[in-house]
Amino acid sequence: AAEEAMEAAVAAEVSNKRVILKRHVTGFPTEDDMEVVTATVSLAVPPGLAAVVVKNLYLSCDPYMRRRMTKHSEPSYPEFVLGEVITTFGVSKVVESGHPDFKAGDLVWGMTACEEYTLITKLGSIFKINHPELPLSYYAGVLGMPGLTAFSGFFNVAKPKKGDYVFVSAASGAVGQLVGQLAKITGCYVVGSAGSDEKVNLLKTKFGFDDAFNYKKEHDLNAALKRCFQQGIDIYFDNVGGTMLDAALLNMRLHGRVAVCGMISQYNLEHPEGVRNLACVVTKRIRIEGFRVIEYFGTYRKFEEEMAGHLKEGNITYMEDVAEGIEKVPAALVGLFYGRNIGKQLVAIAPE
Amino acid sequence: AAEEAMEAAVAAEVSNKRVILKRHVTGFPTEDDMEVVTATVSLAVPPGLAAVVVKNLYLSCDPYMRRRMTKHSEPSYPEFVLGEVITTFGVSKVVESGHPDFKAGDLVWGMTACEEYTLITKLGSIFKINHPELPLSYYAGVLGMPGLTAFSGFFNVAKPKKGDYVFVSAASGAVGQLVGQLAKITGCYVVGSAGSDEKVNLLKTKFGFDDAFNYKKEHDLNAALKRCFQQGIDIYFDNVGGTMLDAALLNMRLHGRVAVCGMISQYNLEHPEGVRNLACVVTKRIRIEGFRVIEYFGTYRKFEEEMAGHLKEGNITYMEDVAEGIEKVPAALVGLFYGRNIGKQLVAIAPE
Repeated sequence: AAEEAMEAAVAAEVSNKRVILKRHVTGFPTEDDMEVVTATVSLAVPPGLAAVVVKNLYLSCDPYMRRRMTKHSEPSYPEFVLGEVITTFGVSKVVESGHPDFKAGDLVWGMTACEEYTLITKLGSIFKINHPELPLSYYAGVLGMPGLTAFSGFFNVAKPKKGDYVFVSAASGAVGQLVGQLAKITGCYVVGSAGSDEKVNLLKTKFGFDDAFNYKKEHDLNAALKRCFQQGIDIYFDNVGGTMLDAALLNMRLHGRVAVCGMISQYNLEHPEGVRNLACVVTKRIRIEGFRVIEYFGTYRKFEEEMAGHLKEGNITYMEDVAEGIEKVPAALVGLFYGRNIGKQLVAIAPE
Repeated sequence: AAEEAMEAAVAAEVSNKRVILKRHVTGFPTEDDMEVVTATVSLAVPPGLAAVVVKNLYLSCDPYMRRRMTKHSEPSYPEFVLGEVITTFGVSKVVESGHPDFKAGDLVWGMTACEEYTLITKLGSIFKINHPELPLSYYAGVLGMPGLTAFSGFFNVAKPKKGDYVFVSAASGAVGQLVGQLAKITGCYVVGSAGSDEKVNLLKTKFGFDDAFNYKKEHDLNAALKRCFQQGIDIYFDNVGGTMLDAALLNMRLHGRVAVCGMISQYNLEHPEGVRNLACVVTKRIRIEGFRVIEYFGTYRKFEEEMAGHLKEGNITYMEDVAEGIEKVPAALVGLFYGRNIGKQLVAIAPE
C-alpha cells in the first residue's frame, strides 16, 4: 500500500513555477531580488498529513511583503527565507485534501505562496469561499485580507462616528479605496491622497471621496491638509507614514485617532524619516494605534457577509489591477513601491 | 452703598508681588524671560462677581508651562500673555469669597497665578481641600494636578495589568515617582530613568522601583532598555519624548501602550527631534496615546480619597523640592529643564 501511495504521488508530480527570494533587500526592491524558478510538486497530500494541495488562481501583491524581504530581528514579523518560495495571500482551488473540512474542487482564499501549486499545512490560515457568485479575484482583495484590513482597521481601531472628518493616504490602493467608501457609508467627510492625477480623479468620481489631492504635486503637505480640512481631521487612516503622518499630526483635532495600517513610504529607507510633530499627541490627546489584520481573522465570516452584501447592493465598488502569469509577480510586487498599480494589485496565475 | 463698597475695596488694597512673562521664549527659558514685579491688589471681590480672592501658599512649577511660553498657534493650549502674570496650579487660602461654595479661611487648590494674591473667577478650576491633616503642599503635588495626572494617565490611558513591564522616564519627577509607585501597587515590574545617580538611587531605595538607570550615562538608550527589560516593555509612561521614546518603541512588546504625559526633552528645541521607529507601531500593534489631566478633573474627589488613603497607610511616599519665596519662581521654573529639582518642584509663597 505504501508503495502504491508512493507511485501515485510520483505519478501526480507536475511542474511548478515559483517565485523565490534570491537575496535580502535593502532600499527599493528590484525584480532581480527575486527569481522565477521551475520545480516539481506532488499533487498528492503526503499520507497522514492534515493539509491540502491547492492550485493558485490569483496571488496578492501587498506592500507589507517588502518588510519581510529585509533581514531584521522582529520575531512577530518573520522574514522570507532565502531561496524559498515567497508566501502571500491568494485565491486557490483545492486539488487534493487530507482534511475532512476540505475536498477537491473547493475554492479557498488565505495564506498560500507565489507558485502554481502549494501544499498548505496551516489550514487555520485558509477560508472556504462562500460567495463564488462574486468575482473570485475579490477574495484576494475586497473580500480577502485587504478588505478585512480596511474594515477592522476603520471600525475597530479608528472607531468612526457620523460626521467625522476622515483622511486616507494611499487612498486608491487595495485598502484605501475601501476605507474611503466605508467612511462615506458611515456618514463621514472623507479626503484621500494618491500619487497621480488619474488616481485622484478616481477617488472623486468612482469611489465617492469628498475631496482628494495628488501628494506629489503638493510642496507643503501641511498646507494641503489645511486646505482640505478646515475643521481638522478626526481620523487619519495611515497607509504611508513619514512626512504625511507628520503633516496629519499637525491637522488632527482634539481626540483625533490615527489608525496605522502601514507605512509604505518608509519600507525602502535604510534610515526611516523622523516624525517631528508627536508633541501634538499630548496637546490634542491623540491616539495613534497600529493594527494587523491577523488579529481579526476570527471575525472574517461576519465581515464576508457584510461586505458581500455591500458589493451586491452596489454600495461598494472595487478596482483591481491584474497582471497575468506567475512570471509577472516580481514586477507587480516592485511596482507597488512606484505606485504603478491602479487599485488592488494581483496576479492571475491560472484560469478559474 | 456703592461708595462704601468702593472705599472698602480701596482700603483693602495690598502690595502684590507677581511673576510676569517679559517675552516669548525660544530655546531654553532663562530667568530673564520673566520678571518679578510689585503691583497692588484689592482683597475684596468686586461686587456681584462670582469669584474668590485667595492668598497663595504654594505655587507649582511644571514642565508643561514652558509650552505656554512659546508663541504658537495651538488653540487648545493657550499662550501666556506678555506682561501679565503667569498662571499655574497652587495651594491657596480664601481671603474673601463672592460665591456661596467658598468662605474666607477655606483652603483650596487649583488654577491660580504666580503672585501673592489672586482673584480667581473660574471657580470650576479650584477644589476645596478635604485632607488638611496631610501636608498642605501635597495639594500642589501628589494630591493635586501631578497626582491626578499620574493616576489617570497610568490607570485610564496605560491600562496596566498585574505583571506588566512598565518603564517610566523622568521617573523621580512630580509625576514619574508616583507612576512607579502605582505600578508597584498594581503588581507590575517597573524601571525608571532619571538624569543623575542621586535620582537613580532614590528610585531604587525610596520609591521601590525594581531597577533604574541614569540616561545621561548611557551611550545607547536602546541597549539600556534591552538590559533592563529582557522581556520587553508593556507600558511606557512617557514624560520626555524624543530619543527616549524612539528607543522605547524598539523595546515595546506586542500590544504595548505608550501613555504620553509630556515631552520635556522637546520643549526647548526649535526643531523637535524626529522619532524614527514608528513602524514598530504596526508590527507590534502599539497604542500611543496622549492625555491631559484636565479631562480627569471630574474624577478628582475619588482620586483624592484613594491617594490620601495610600499616603496615610504609607503605601505611597512623595518627595518635594521646595523653593522659598515668590522671587524664586523664575529660577525654579528654569531649573526644571536642567533637572535641578529632586522630586516635585514647588515654591512656598507664604506661611500656612
